[in-house]
Amino acid sequence: MDILEASQRLELLGQSVIPFSLGEPDFDTPECVKEVCIKAIRDNKTKYTHSQGIIELREAIAAHYLKKYGVTVHPDQIIVTQGTSPAFFLLFSTLLGKKKEVILPNPHYPCDSNFVEFLDGKNIFVPVIEKESYQWDTQKVAQKIGKQTAALFVTSPSNPTGTVLKREVLQKLANLSVPIVSDEIYHGLVYEGQEHSILEFTDNAFVVNGFSKTYAMTGFRLGYLIAPQKYIRPLQKIQQNFYISANSFVQQAGIAALTQAGPDCERMRQEFKRRRDVMLVGLKKLGLKISYQPEGAFYIFVDVSHLSKDSYKLAFDILEQAHVAVTPGIDFGSRGEGHLRFSYATSIEKIEEGLDRLGRYLCNFKSLR
Amino acid sequence: MDILEASQRLELLGQSVIPFSLGEPDFDTPECVKEVCIKAIRDNKTKYTHSQGIIELREAIAAHYLKKYGVTVHPDQIIVTQGTSPAFFLLFSTLLGKKKEVILPNPHYPCDSNFVEFLDGKNIFVPVIEKESYQWDTQKVAQKIGKQTAALFVTSPSNPTGTVLKREVLQKLANLSVPIVSDEIYHGLVYEGQEHSILEFTDNAFVVNGFSKTYAMTGFRLGYLIAPQKYIRPLQKIQQNFYISANSFVQQAGIAALTQAGPDCERMRQEFKRRRDVMLVGLKKLGLKISYQPEGAFYIFVDVSHLSKDSYKLAFDILEQAHVAVTPGIDFGSRGEGHLRFSYATSIEKIEEGLDRLGRYLCNFKSLR
Repeated sequence: MDILEASQRLELLGQSVIPFSLGEPDFDTPECVKEVCIKAIRDNKTKYTHSQGIIELREAIAAHYLKKYGVTVHPDQIIVTQGTSPAFFLLFSTLLGKKKEVILPNPHYPCDSNFVEFLDGKNIFVPVIEKESYQWDTQKVAQKIGKQTAALFVTSPSNPTGTVLKREVLQKLANLSVPIVSDEIYHGLVYEGQEHSILEFTDNAFVVNGFSKTYAMTGFRLGYLIAPQKYIRPLQKIQQNFYISANSFVQQAGIAALTQAGPDCERMRQEFKRRRDVMLVGLKKLGLKISYQPEGAFYIFVDVSHLSKDSYKLAFDILEQAHVAVTPGIDFGSRGEGHLRFSYATSIEKIEEGLDRLGRYLCNFKSLR
Repeated sequence: MDILEASQRLELLGQSVIPFSLGEPDFDTPECVKEVCIKAIRDNKTKYTHSQGIIELREAIAAHYLKKYGVTVHPDQIIVTQGTSPAFFLLFSTLLGKKKEVILPNPHYPCDSNFVEFLDGKNIFVPVIEKESYQWDTQKVAQKIGKQTAALFVTSPSNPTGTVLKREVLQKLANLSVPIVSDEIYHGLVYEGQEHSILEFTDNAFVVNGFSKTYAMTGFRLGYLIAPQKYIRPLQKIQQNFYISANSFVQQAGIAALTQAGPDCERMRQEFKRRRDVMLVGLKKLGLKISYQPEGAFYIFVDVSHLSKDSYKLAFDILEQAHVAVTPGIDFGSRGEGHLRFSYATSIEKIEEGLDRLGRYLCNFKSLR
């Protein structure tokens, strides 16, 4: 956030800043989604809906999970939320409480651990390392499991690493017989192999997903939670009290995304893949060592500890000297220190320009003041 | 909620149910609001926004409070939220903690006390009674204030009573020098006299307001919080973590509501006034005693303790026998018991039909099984 604000200040001063820090697609929302949303507004679909969301959207979500992953989800198991954040709030409100623990990777997306802490839970971190392509070490996970363990918190493709967890890793995690919270928001943005839903391996899982990333719908604020049936009633009560329902016409747009936007998503995915390749090759050419393959999302996590141990200071220096905004690794936990996250959610032209600027910066780099 | 579900079951069986239980306007959203929302979608305003909301909307909110109440609010003091529920969540997350107390009226809107409890606060109730037109007794409030008091929670016009708090009552509450949380969501729906914002009397206040009721925009999910400047940074951090931002194009619609929808709001307000008059006269004609003037919102709170002390049972009996859905008073706290809440957010025709059905029900009424 500090980097973002400093970057905005620079831009107000007339400087062009290359945004390798973005957490949202730069693409416009697919036309078919926009048109359905507009029609719903014209048709006066502007009232509260069922607290779990309109049945047509929940059916479309269930159909999507059946078609893509071969898993059966009942529409009653789905709660539509205003983005994925409220979905996490709902599920952790229900799962957590004093002394309950959630096992999550280090590095990880910072909001994840913030949710757990806010809801009186305790974060237990399992290191994931570049040498192992940031895959979870399931033996280490097993050692952390105890009576207090409420859930494992899995994000694949991962933010900040872009790692897609392997089928066998997910299977082993599922075999640990602990509830799994699976953030599947970057599903659909995978460039090699195939992503798997946790539901292929266990029913003892909470899936959080949404429309922001794959469908370029961040501003719509639409997400959903799939939960085991026995949790639905308590989850619904919190939803009723804290959110009432998701936006009515935006829910209609969600149906269009799932049923009509496939070709748009494929076009965006192909473009992300091109960008990733350009950025990955470019960063390596600059002498940065990247020994793993970031297969999904739109992030590359780069070890820069030879330049500085202080990723926050380094990110600020790069912003000020090179006018390139990157995210300091320390934002993603202690094991993110000494790293920078590069986002390729921007055009090839900007990626090339940003790489040029970084190249000049690195040529002149001696050490940080 | 139980009544709502039972009512939906009856309708699925082909029964017509008169909805005196609605908590949202039955009017369509004003065309000018819908058109601006549609234009924003076409213009691809579909990305995350500033976590506090777009500056143009916050400026329009500030201008609205200046024009309507003569109070100065800086746009930086405003956080735009997805409906008012997240605004309450933000402010109580910041204000509360172990042993902190919130003073609120009994009867009151049930979500209010649920928020306080969920966030580890304690609800302290002050009775408000029909003989005093459900105005707060400020002496009784003063007696409840202590070191643990985090806030007074004021809703005017009130749900469930429709009472508009008098200027002098608000002034006296402000003089108590305790932070006031003021739910102003029903402002604009006042049929006698004039509603006042708490900000006319004190800056030590958190105002929650939104677009759902006055602008008939429930399904848009758009609200806002006005807070003292010193609380903004912690509030914003929770907003960033738990919500990211409100829907981007819906925020544009909010600007249209504030700047263009005045005539639509006045038309709806006049119609609500007509409905209230028909319902108030009608209920009295049925022999129900209503000794106060419900001046705002779209609710009348009626003492039916001569029929039954069990408002839940009574509401169910009325639904089953007369096919009229009303809300049991017990939903609004212990002092709501023996009462029913009648909502007039439905057409004059339905109000008249509902009154007819109630008349027949009461004629045959002996006592509840």
